[in-house]
Amino acid sequence: MDLARLVELNAAYARAIDNEKFEEWPAFFLDPCLYKVTTVENVAKGLEAGVMYADSRGMLEDRVSALRTANIYERQRYRHIVGLPVVLAEADGIAEVETPFLIVRIMRDGNMTLFATGCYRDKVKPDAIGALRFVERIAVCDGSRFDTLVAIPF
Amino acid sequence: MDLARLVELNAAYARAIDNEKFEEWPAFFLDPCLYKVTTVENVAKGLEAGVMYADSRGMLEDRVSALRTANIYERQRYRHIVGLPVVLAEADGIAEVETPFLIVRIMRDGNMTLFATGCYRDKVKPDAIGALRFVERIAVCDGSRFDTLVAIPF
Amino acid sequence: MDLARLVELNAAYARAIDNEKFEEWPAFFLDPCLYKVTTVENVAKGLEAGVMYADSRGMLEDRVSALRTANIYERQRYRHIVGLPVVLAEADGIAEVETPFLIVRIMRDGNMTLFATGCYRDKVKPDAIGALRFVERIAVCDGSRFDTLVAIPF
Repeated sequence: MDLARLVELNAAYARAIDNEKFEEWPAFFLDPCLYKVTTVENVAKGLEAGVMYADSRGMLEDRVSALRTANIYERQRYRHIVGLPVVLAEADGIAEVETPFLIVRIMRDGNMTLFATGCYRDKVKPDAIGALRFVERIAVCDGSRFDTLVAIPF
Repeated sequence: MDLARLVELNAAYARAIDNEKFEEWPAFFLDPCLYKVTTVENVAKGLEAGVMYADSRGMLEDRVSALRTANIYERQRYRHIVGLPVVLAEADGIAEVETPFLIVRIMRDGNMTLFATGCYRDKVKPDAIGALRFVERIAVCDGSRFDTLVAIPF
Repeated sequence: MDLARLVELNAAYARAIDNEKFEEWPAFFLDPCLYKVTTVENVAKGLEAGVMYADSRGMLEDRVSALRTANIYERQRYRHIVGLPVVLAEADGIAEVETPFLIVRIMRDGNMTLFATGCYRDKVKPDAIGALRFVERIAVCDGSRFDTLVAIPF
């Protein structure tokens, strides 16, 4: 799979979230899909449950509604810095990719903190019109401040 | 516009600043140009004024002179980590691009802090010999420690 | 040298370290090689000695053994965010490249700190089968918390 197109996918994904265009977020996934936020410790222990879980676009859309209702995102902003993707394997048109990320949280007073670092473990596939989409996106966090009940997408 | 060339432009720009080759900085812009550092709050409120403003290479050069005279940059270093560019539109040879950034400030004692995060909102165009240059670069900060009177370029 | 391939090299290098696959690390270098971790101050003063030094794959392998014996890496994790490479020159099949980096350290309790920022100053060359490898990788740190005796590779 073309590296430039993976870079574009990741850049557009991060931009949608950081610009708080959450409604655009589910469209980055195929339907059904697997979206999960978890930690490196949970993965090492074989724990399946994550901090967030969705297996369809409908569940992703529910998540966005909850976020809009809670309005919690208004108290802070986030900035994703997405690193360089590594393509691990490719078969049947699906690429397995790992991409590191760092997320900074910015409070309303301008104070910035490291919110999370980790690695996206993705399965990426072109949709019907050839646009790359996530079959699977598992955000494995090295560390994170999971201190909000209704978190933004990772 | 070719993604690889946008990546090269951004990498060269960040390198010039982080290596304190400030005199190379104005040449990344066409003349006239628009260079502005502002905040996401100011943009949301429709406030035009930014923390820094220049509309010609001459103004950018003045900024560099002020910086060299103040010598303030000697007390700290900066490191830009520039994310992946998103091309939003392209017309008449000008590409509209958004690129996230994170800037770390390193004090002389080695202490590091998050100095700024944000997004460059750029208009990019090839110059007479085909090198990509900024018609416009607006650094929209999510957060930033604007605590120095004469700041380095963003 | 193709930018996409340099990006791939850097991404694979960072991934090996962050996933603690240290045994894969020496294979990113040709033999003999030059690997050094130093600071911007040392470079400015012309000091040759760095915080880490190796000039062969054997020395890199020794470093990994020391790390495994000390087990110190188990107390924390690291996350590299590698920026965009700038190719400075190219001659005799060797490219001179500078690439910024930021490393976050994540303690076992999930607490994250900026561990280091800086710039890789690399000489990169294809090996016998055409894979890009480091002839030289000098990690020049702007700042760093050099508080562990046996550090992970930068």
